[in-house]
Amino acid sequence: MDKKTATAAILLIGDELLSGKVEDENARYLVHELRRAGVTVGRIEVVPDQLDVIAESVRRLSAGFEWVFSSGGVGPTHDDVTLAAVAAAFERPIARNAELEALMRRTWGEGLHQRDLRMADIPVGARLEHGPRGPSASWPVVVVNNVWILPGVPKIFRKKFEAIRELFQGPAIHGRAVYSAEPEGVIADTLDSVVAAFPTVAIGSYPHLDALDYRVKITLDGRDARAVDAATARLVGSLGEAVVRTE
Amino acid sequence: MDKKTATAAILLIGDELLSGKVEDENARYLVHELRRAGVTVGRIEVVPDQLDVIAESVRRLSAGFEWVFSSGGVGPTHDDVTLAAVAAAFERPIARNAELEALMRRTWGEGLHQRDLRMADIPVGARLEHGPRGPSASWPVVVVNNVWILPGVPKIFRKKFEAIRELFQGPAIHGRAVYSAEPEGVIADTLDSVVAAFPTVAIGSYPHLDALDYRVKITLDGRDARAVDAATARLVGSLGEAVVRTE
Repeated sequence: MDKKTATAAILLIGDELLSGKVEDENARYLVHELRRAGVTVGRIEVVPDQLDVIAESVRRLSAGFEWVFSSGGVGPTHDDVTLAAVAAAFERPIARNAELEALMRRTWGEGLHQRDLRMADIPVGARLEHGPRGPSASWPVVVVNNVWILPGVPKIFRKKFEAIRELFQGPAIHGRAVYSAEPEGVIADTLDSVVAAFPTVAIGSYPHLDALDYRVKITLDGRDARAVDAATARLVGSLGEAVVRTE
Repeated sequence: MDKKTATAAILLIGDELLSGKVEDENARYLVHELRRAGVTVGRIEVVPDQLDVIAESVRRLSAGFEWVFSSGGVGPTHDDVTLAAVAAAFERPIARNAELEALMRRTWGEGLHQRDLRMADIPVGARLEHGPRGPSASWPVVVVNNVWILPGVPKIFRKKFEAIRELFQGPAIHGRAVYSAEPEGVIADTLDSVVAAFPTVAIGSYPHLDALDYRVKITLDGRDARAVDAATARLVGSLGEAVVRTE
């Protein structure tokens, strides 16, 4: 797998997502944020609270993408094994981090329990990343190699990502859409020719059974805005009267 | 990875899910259906419309789970590469299936376009599965080894799964929940002891920041109802006054 620039994978950790007890909010949020930042999300994986399974995914995704964002498994209870799994993935030991421990003691004071300190036990060599607005803005994010470890609670996930979001940027992704009154079987050959003529443009074709005035939505995405516009123009020209509208 | 009985993986295929253009409905539906059927979903993966990436996931998931359900990528356009990817995963050629072709011609009649027949090009050796109510109930599902290939359009996905759902059954999963007024740091040691005493019960701990009358929801799941109830009783006894309620 090539590790292309401005690509990301999202790793959601938690039995509750696989059993349907909880619906994911974090990947849903992150795909929009990353797309807006010009980062292509190439994979989402949802795995259970099992150290070896998480470690295998971390290793594989870390090798395949520029950034990996994990969600969940960082609390103080028995089912929180993400930090240990990331350590295992990169064959590093776990050790208590003095900066995190001091921060927890300062922030929680009397409310801190011995067991909470387990959240300060992180892979040796991990970085603590505060983001461009510095330590006052938020609790730091633990980063190991290219793996950014975020918590599963959606409100905290967002807060932490907001503190670091400027660190992830790619060239803007331009998107257009064309709506066709003809079904996929009729327009497929036309699509093929546009796909072949514009190799830098990602073209997707999506039938919508319940749409009132069209049958297929075609999307055209790319980092080269002129190529995207040219491909859109070519497609609209080729489809002719089948085009209901363009966005 | 052990291939345990009554386990499943869900493979969602489509750039539109990774770019946030479309929100997944199929995995969300399927995790509930499978849980109700006693099947443990052990993995969800979302991959782009890329043959080699899909094939790698199919191979890995097929080896790790009793059943794999794929969603998407089965239409007639250039971005529909699931059938070819599954063929590649199992090193099989693709060939036009006579039964599917006949079915398409009969069903669509004049509305069938040459290009639509690509949907009848499936891996050699694939089975066509109609489900227990037979051919009249629905269009068949293409099955290759333990991989069940379903379409991405949610309405059709559900209809096809409904036709075959009785084929996937495991021993019922029993679930209980306990709500704690104390935070995770306080109850973590207690949880550990219950986890250790009841190895067949999966125990999850979920902090809820915005809940009004509790801090943590603890879930207890297992196929042995008596063990689940005994673990719940032990937990409630150990947590004492921290217990807000039990479900």
